[in-house]
Amino acid sequence: MKALGHQIIAEFYDCDGDLLADVDYVTDVMLEAAKRAKATIVTHTFHHFSPLGVSGAIIIAESHLAIHTWPEYGYAAVDLFTCGDSLHTEHAFDYLRVALKSGTFSSMSLERGHQAMLAGRRTQTPLDRKVVNG
Amino acid sequence: MKALGHQIIAEFYDCDGDLLADVDYVTDVMLEAAKRAKATIVTHTFHHFSPLGVSGAIIIAESHLAIHTWPEYGYAAVDLFTCGDSLHTEHAFDYLRVALKSGTFSSMSLERGHQAMLAGRRTQTPLDRKVVNG
Repeated sequence: MKALGHQIIAEFYDCDGDLLADVDYVTDVMLEAAKRAKATIVTHTFHHFSPLGVSGAIIIAESHLAIHTWPEYGYAAVDLFTCGDSLHTEHAFDYLRVALKSGTFSSMSLERGHQAMLAGRRTQTPLDRKVVNG
Repeated sequence: MKALGHQIIAEFYDCDGDLLADVDYVTDVMLEAAKRAKATIVTHTFHHFSPLGVSGAIIIAESHLAIHTWPEYGYAAVDLFTCGDSLHTEHAFDYLRVALKSGTFSSMSLERGHQAMLAGRRTQTPLDRKVVNG
């Protein structure tokens, strides 16, 4: 274990602005992206803003996915934050890139909660997390 | 405008593990952090996991705040994602650092949706966003 969490910072430029303005579409593609990553969806919340723009987050057992769209710029900011090694965030990224019709895109990978900073705490494998009510 | 969004990636190490395991406490301090940043809260969702750990997100009119805690490591990962120039994310960061009793911490600032990548799209000020139902 090098880090507790892994975060993909995705920048989707030159997207279809009409799609980015459609809260139902954005919700559907983010949920599908979570499924393609093999994430366990806990809950989600998406909102559209006036006159344009959608923001939303999906809490997954393995952390979260979030999106903010600027349809007037054809731009969407997406974060894919996961823990453990079992998820396929690259599948989520590739799916979103196509679904949002992004012509130009980039991604950056961050490690969160680095092992070297956890010295003095537990050093065994992180506890498995299970979804509970509440 | 250099970028549409600004994101603070905050790493809080050596926190009080009991506080990080308390979903009510984590919810309260994240909502208070949003208020201290002068954010407009739209909705929020927080969940505790078995046996330990809290994940949550607050959708704000200006983007989102998210947290994931590993009480067994005394570690919390926090993202403060905002758009516009009116928010005080430094106040949220400072408040969280104290409220989670973090002994060691770091932050990184990212620009999201960089102006140079938006060329060919609208170049005026981004549209003001207002919260609507739905």
